[in-house]
Amino acid sequence: MNLDGFFYPESIAIIGASRKEGSLGRVFLDKLVQYGYTGKILPVNPKTDEIDGIPCYPSVDDLPITPSVAVILVRKDLAIEAVDICGKKGIRNIVVITAGFREVGGEGVKREKDLMKVVRKHRLQLIGPNCMGIINTDPKVSMNASFSPTDPFCGNVAFLSQSGALGVAVLELSTSLRLGFSIFISEGNKAHLQDHHFLEYLASHDNTEVVTLYLESIENVPEFRRVTTELSRRKPVIVLKAGSSERGAKAASSHTGALASPDRAADALFKQSGIIRAQTVEEMFHYALAFSNQPVPRGKRVAIITNAGGPAILATDAVEKYGLEMAVLSDKTKSELKQFLPEESSVNNPVDMIASANEETYRQTLSAILNEKSVDALFVIIVRPPVNTTPGMIAEKFRDVLSAKVTTKPVFIILMANKDENCGLPVFQELKLPVYDYPEAAVKSMAVMFHHRLWRKKPQGKIKRFPADKSALKYIFESARADNRQFLSTHEMGTILTSYGLPVARGRIVQSAEEAVQFMKDVKQAVVLKVESPAIIHKSDSGCVKLNLQTAETVKDAFNEIMQNALKQTAPEKISGIFVQEMLREGRELALGMKRDPNYGPVIMCGMGGIFIEILKDTSFRIAPVTDADALEMLQELKTYPVLKGARGEAGVDIQLITESIQKLSQLSLDWPEVLELDLNPFIVAPRRENCKIVDVRMEIRIK
Amino acid sequence: MNLDGFFYPESIAIIGASRKEGSLGRVFLDKLVQYGYTGKILPVNPKTDEIDGIPCYPSVDDLPITPSVAVILVRKDLAIEAVDICGKKGIRNIVVITAGFREVGGEGVKREKDLMKVVRKHRLQLIGPNCMGIINTDPKVSMNASFSPTDPFCGNVAFLSQSGALGVAVLELSTSLRLGFSIFISEGNKAHLQDHHFLEYLASHDNTEVVTLYLESIENVPEFRRVTTELSRRKPVIVLKAGSSERGAKAASSHTGALASPDRAADALFKQSGIIRAQTVEEMFHYALAFSNQPVPRGKRVAIITNAGGPAILATDAVEKYGLEMAVLSDKTKSELKQFLPEESSVNNPVDMIASANEETYRQTLSAILNEKSVDALFVIIVRPPVNTTPGMIAEKFRDVLSAKVTTKPVFIILMANKDENCGLPVFQELKLPVYDYPEAAVKSMAVMFHHRLWRKKPQGKIKRFPADKSALKYIFESARADNRQFLSTHEMGTILTSYGLPVARGRIVQSAEEAVQFMKDVKQAVVLKVESPAIIHKSDSGCVKLNLQTAETVKDAFNEIMQNALKQTAPEKISGIFVQEMLREGRELALGMKRDPNYGPVIMCGMGGIFIEILKDTSFRIAPVTDADALEMLQELKTYPVLKGARGEAGVDIQLITESIQKLSQLSLDWPEVLELDLNPFIVAPRRENCKIVDVRMEIRIK
Repeated sequence: MNLDGFFYPESIAIIGASRKEGSLGRVFLDKLVQYGYTGKILPVNPKTDEIDGIPCYPSVDDLPITPSVAVILVRKDLAIEAVDICGKKGIRNIVVITAGFREVGGEGVKREKDLMKVVRKHRLQLIGPNCMGIINTDPKVSMNASFSPTDPFCGNVAFLSQSGALGVAVLELSTSLRLGFSIFISEGNKAHLQDHHFLEYLASHDNTEVVTLYLESIENVPEFRRVTTELSRRKPVIVLKAGSSERGAKAASSHTGALASPDRAADALFKQSGIIRAQTVEEMFHYALAFSNQPVPRGKRVAIITNAGGPAILATDAVEKYGLEMAVLSDKTKSELKQFLPEESSVNNPVDMIASANEETYRQTLSAILNEKSVDALFVIIVRPPVNTTPGMIAEKFRDVLSAKVTTKPVFIILMANKDENCGLPVFQELKLPVYDYPEAAVKSMAVMFHHRLWRKKPQGKIKRFPADKSALKYIFESARADNRQFLSTHEMGTILTSYGLPVARGRIVQSAEEAVQFMKDVKQAVVLKVESPAIIHKSDSGCVKLNLQTAETVKDAFNEIMQNALKQTAPEKISGIFVQEMLREGRELALGMKRDPNYGPVIMCGMGGIFIEILKDTSFRIAPVTDADALEMLQELKTYPVLKGARGEAGVDIQLITESIQKLSQLSLDWPEVLELDLNPFIVAPRRENCKIVDVRMEIRIK
Repeated sequence: MNLDGFFYPESIAIIGASRKEGSLGRVFLDKLVQYGYTGKILPVNPKTDEIDGIPCYPSVDDLPITPSVAVILVRKDLAIEAVDICGKKGIRNIVVITAGFREVGGEGVKREKDLMKVVRKHRLQLIGPNCMGIINTDPKVSMNASFSPTDPFCGNVAFLSQSGALGVAVLELSTSLRLGFSIFISEGNKAHLQDHHFLEYLASHDNTEVVTLYLESIENVPEFRRVTTELSRRKPVIVLKAGSSERGAKAASSHTGALASPDRAADALFKQSGIIRAQTVEEMFHYALAFSNQPVPRGKRVAIITNAGGPAILATDAVEKYGLEMAVLSDKTKSELKQFLPEESSVNNPVDMIASANEETYRQTLSAILNEKSVDALFVIIVRPPVNTTPGMIAEKFRDVLSAKVTTKPVFIILMANKDENCGLPVFQELKLPVYDYPEAAVKSMAVMFHHRLWRKKPQGKIKRFPADKSALKYIFESARADNRQFLSTHEMGTILTSYGLPVARGRIVQSAEEAVQFMKDVKQAVVLKVESPAIIHKSDSGCVKLNLQTAETVKDAFNEIMQNALKQTAPEKISGIFVQEMLREGRELALGMKRDPNYGPVIMCGMGGIFIEILKDTSFRIAPVTDADALEMLQELKTYPVLKGARGEAGVDIQLITESIQKLSQLSLDWPEVLELDLNPFIVAPRRENCKIVDVRMEIRIK
């Protein structure tokens, strides 16, 4: 979708511009003028013919030209008509600032539907409603068509915000960090243009090198995933997603339905598409500052240059915490440093030049460390020197170093001083050296860059397709729906899983003790007996499950006992028989599952069963379709992964079987939208593939 | 220790004051003068008789009076003599700024020892060496005897910093947050006066209500613990401790020795003494800002007032994340709000007054929510309003509300706007309303306050003393030392543990199969056989352990087999016999352990055994002595605690036995300083006390 009409408009009509000082219609117009918009401004207001010297038109019809964009600022009850008139006039791009639509509920929902009818009628492109406008800092247009009280610095960071107020607050706070923006979009209600439309546009927008988003919801998950997966490989995408309080999953439960909260699904989506998730507004700033100014580090070995010991120790702590590594400096570099650093300095990493360091010391040290082969990235800590020099003087010297030398090593400044006139901030900004107040934020941002590089280097996973006879399964789902059955029988579930090649433990429903004994003889191992009845929920507690039966005698006894216990609880016609199943002795209990989220689609879960899921919540999630790479990562993300790989001298289990099973579960979930929840738990996994079997299955289907 | 001499001095001598602009001796003097020190300044310098109009003395001997404090700024080779002369003159309080002591190693270490000789000779009190000085903002003295380039605001926060440079950087950065300080101490090398001396002084310092520390090391852990435990109950103590990269414990190990890193020990110490640990400089600021301005909340129910939706959602997320709760507003309050808020507002919590809210809307809403009984604490979010009002005008209205009404509910401001002249910062500061840039930091700080309140309300634990016959054990340790044995025998360890009432599984060393069979008959249950030999390390792997022996036959066979296997590996005289032990069948594997840290003393560990410790690192630590309350908290801290309490329908284990065992382990560790490491793993724990037994013990003792 080409949105150049919005972001490089030749003219902008303001429907609802106003003369009145302090009114929204006036503030908006003033912003546009003050920021130096290069195109033509066309205010529309029936009550006046000029505002602050700009000719004003009584109506859209009276406009001398067809403007590239119309911004709607009128009252909510007039907004739809205004858009309709714009459409008739041939204006294609509309920004609706007016609020009072879906966000207020009730009548507003209807109003938004009516608005969309007009959009479709005229084939318009619409941003909003209920938004705060758009900005493009490109000097070609210099367009601030928003309520942002602050003019952002020009830069390469695009920012999409679902909350207009948060958006302008971010722009305002960003100026103190000297973060530069390319484009800002207040998305509003996203009634027409949505995240993926904007992201697709930004993908090809030359001035944009980093994309940041504040999101509260994602309307079109498949499109969002498609666009961001592609975009992330070229431009880092940083998302601050509100709604983490939807994590849920507090109760001890092993059901995927209870564990796969919308926020977990969002986390999974972001991982799968290479999105960097910021946890706070501040983190979003810090990451954007890093990516927008410096190249990503080629490795994780960092050096720290400092004039103060304490902050360097804190930085070193952070290096360890966030998975980077302290570089080991070569003897050559160390002796070079010794030539100009005083005796009390440390020429090891962190290089502590001590408090007497002046701008020249900084210059020489930076230069020496940039030449050091063992260093992939640098942090320069500056605590305001008590005497001798200022941060500003140091910044000037860095200009010399960086102009004399092309380097691909990222350099971050940690400036622990107030941002006054001597702090050198404008020079650091000019040199594209990001400045952080505190060591931890700088190190964390570098680590995020490094890990993003690793993600980019990883081969993209494949969505594999496994053979499955879908036509044979159709009957099962149809008959369940016809019978109004929300849960399928053990046999039906076994058929479905088996046809996807998922390994289900052998079992059969029998009507007599003799049949059960025969089954035991057939499978040549111990068996389990369970009653098969939808009427009995807590089978174990009511004596309707018997484990580890090894002889004909014990099988017979168990059969009769279960039947007696079952008949105490329900009528004979509610018991379809006894389920006899092979008993699996070795192996670990794995659990796989799926929950269909109304928004994110099938959310696939994996974890070790029992207390690992219920108590320790050691689970991982992805949304379908799950690639082969995703499936392996799901396992690797588990804290218990070393146990599956084989810890404490024990053999590992068949990892490949598990990752294939995850992919098959994903495929099944996409093939059958009627499956709402599916739990394969326990799925016994062992070193040998033939001993890996799904022992219990729970499947809920949509019956209406 | 009374340090009033340092902090309320009538006169200060500056040994090494200088005329030279930009020199340390001059900068120091200028600071003292500019900040308005109310006492007498006595510069000492042989080369001049006045500096900037202040009379200068050629030597300490020539001083007309005996100053309260002497600050030493001379070269390192002259410093000790200077201190000696001060001592002779009768000056009691010395601040040594001069560097080049222990921190540089080698000769510096000796220099520091020599300095301490002089301190002892004259019974001096000394801060430093290698420090940046001290500050007292109390208008009675107005003393900035430091290199801090910025004058801090006067306030109630004391700050101790082990790093001078970090200290002054913190003071500088704090001014933008408007955090006010009472006392600042750059501790330097802590050669004489240490953390606990300063903390004890601050405990009784009226102007100090919050204590913050930046620490790299703790010299006297018992004194530090004693003082902070007492102090934390009256004034919050916030510590930023560097060195978290000492966490260690990367390899899969279940030995306490490998897991109890110094940083874990520090964490434990802080928990035990109620210290609030900040993870970053910024967190330290944020917590101090909260405690220094507002009362702690009485409950966890918070309300959020906002003029923008997005930031309120982020704040709500943070409320959930940090363990607070969103208050449910009463119908009365809601209808009150409806009377003045526009239709599009939300009168539920968060109360969204929407963008049109002006200062009067804020006033009315704040007032209504302060009256709401269900609310314990408030957050007021202000995104710069596009029109109508400014944060400064809102601040003025808050003055009216807060002066009209006494409230014990803390109110925090989240001001998402640049700190310009309209932002109201000075007014908020005057009203003692802390201002945060971002929702997450504000909510986290409130949560820290709430949790600190819970800690204060908790009854203090008791250090219980369990009966133990120490004299009987003395022989064991002495004979091991005499034999140069680093590890004790199973029998010796059993004797030691038993005498502390720790439940050791029954066992005996036997020399024949018949004895082993007899033991099995005596204990009336299955047994385990293990070779007893210090020469065989990997007993299981080499076939020297046999489990679950239930008959005389199997015991005999096992005895013979183990002997054969053992003799393949070592000489007969290295085998002291076979250890036969009762086999415990039910229960969970717990692990208790102790490591003696050279600095922190005995560090006690607790966790669930096997993969829970090795892979999942689910452990908790405390330093000895461990109180009864500590012991229970150690268990409660474990992620696997619900399993011990009884999860998934299973009975819980004997918690009291475990907490007593932890305390006994603590007592044993303090009784016997020669025990370096002790692991009780596995310690089988079960619902019935008689089934709880320690099955394996490893004890390492100091032999030199």
